[in-house]
Amino acid sequence: MSKVMLGSQPLVYPMPLFLVGAKVDDKPNFMAVAWGGIANGDPPMISVAIRHARYTLKGIKDNMAFSVNVPSSDMVKETDYCGITSGSKIDKVNICGLKIFYGKLSNVPMIEQCPVNLECEVAHILDLGSHVLVVGKIAETYISETCLIDGKPDVQKIKPFCYTMTPANQYQSIGEVIAKAFSVGKELRTRE
Amino acid sequence: MSKVMLGSQPLVYPMPLFLVGAKVDDKPNFMAVAWGGIANGDPPMISVAIRHARYTLKGIKDNMAFSVNVPSSDMVKETDYCGITSGSKIDKVNICGLKIFYGKLSNVPMIEQCPVNLECEVAHILDLGSHVLVVGKIAETYISETCLIDGKPDVQKIKPFCYTMTPANQYQSIGEVIAKAFSVGKELRTRE
Repeated sequence: MSKVMLGSQPLVYPMPLFLVGAKVDDKPNFMAVAWGGIANGDPPMISVAIRHARYTLKGIKDNMAFSVNVPSSDMVKETDYCGITSGSKIDKVNICGLKIFYGKLSNVPMIEQCPVNLECEVAHILDLGSHVLVVGKIAETYISETCLIDGKPDVQKIKPFCYTMTPANQYQSIGEVIAKAFSVGKELRTRE
Repeated sequence: MSKVMLGSQPLVYPMPLFLVGAKVDDKPNFMAVAWGGIANGDPPMISVAIRHARYTLKGIKDNMAFSVNVPSSDMVKETDYCGITSGSKIDKVNICGLKIFYGKLSNVPMIEQCPVNLECEVAHILDLGSHVLVVGKIAETYISETCLIDGKPDVQKIKPFCYTMTPANQYQSIGEVIAKAFSVGKELRTRE
């Protein structure tokens, strides 16, 4: 077999890059999270994995609410900064020049410059070891008006990026369309 | 504010595209999952959201084990096919020409053509509504020998792709490197 064992590694491609936000000690704070994804369809939920000691987690637990903000490629510097500094020492909102807005939940700060924002209420906090998996019920989804096309979110305007862990920790843009989903696979039906 | 409310939507960018596998009724079966991500660091865990009625879920529950296979762009047709058909009616392994291998866990089928394979034991099954969130402890991680560079997994060779839900359900490749992670943000330290 042409496979090599790497041990037990949390290795998948691609990983997203979210800015997870909460009010901590009454101030908005954001952290970068690459470990997360949609967790449920109805009601819509999302999960994010966060280390126990993270400052943002304190705010999530205090408010039982948080936001998931999807940054665009233009914000890669700010996103990385939010991942390598702690809000316990630094006012990231100020340093990064983030514009904060609030939606339905008064205690959930969101980032105006991020094209997509999910406002979430904590549904579950699962202690898995080094991290807790925070599962949030999405109360409302926001999109920047400039990122719509025919009333729908447009990935070309959102310009999301992903995180790839190996071979060198890096951020990569989303590339060209390679196929239509729920469609290209139909070509194999001739083999049935 | 220049934001538009979309209601409560499970909208993030990018979403991964995993082929989740299990033995169902003693035969290997795989389904496409875009809702999932790494859930814990130590021990390494991954979560995937699966609709209650899915055939693969039966196998996951019966064996309390499953695999997460990361397909390359070359496999977009097969991946989509695994997402639009049910293993209760079709032998996807045969139709897609998947080569199956087994690792440490004798009951967890994995796909040889997928560059990255995670072999998982179920740690939690969380009923969230329309879906269950299956959290798996990663027992072993496999990589195709041809996808290594200097002994490390190489994203250029793995050629992963992602799923973007809007504006048109589609698969997109991973694009160019836009910045070095845990590094580019340091430029903002001059503002502290």
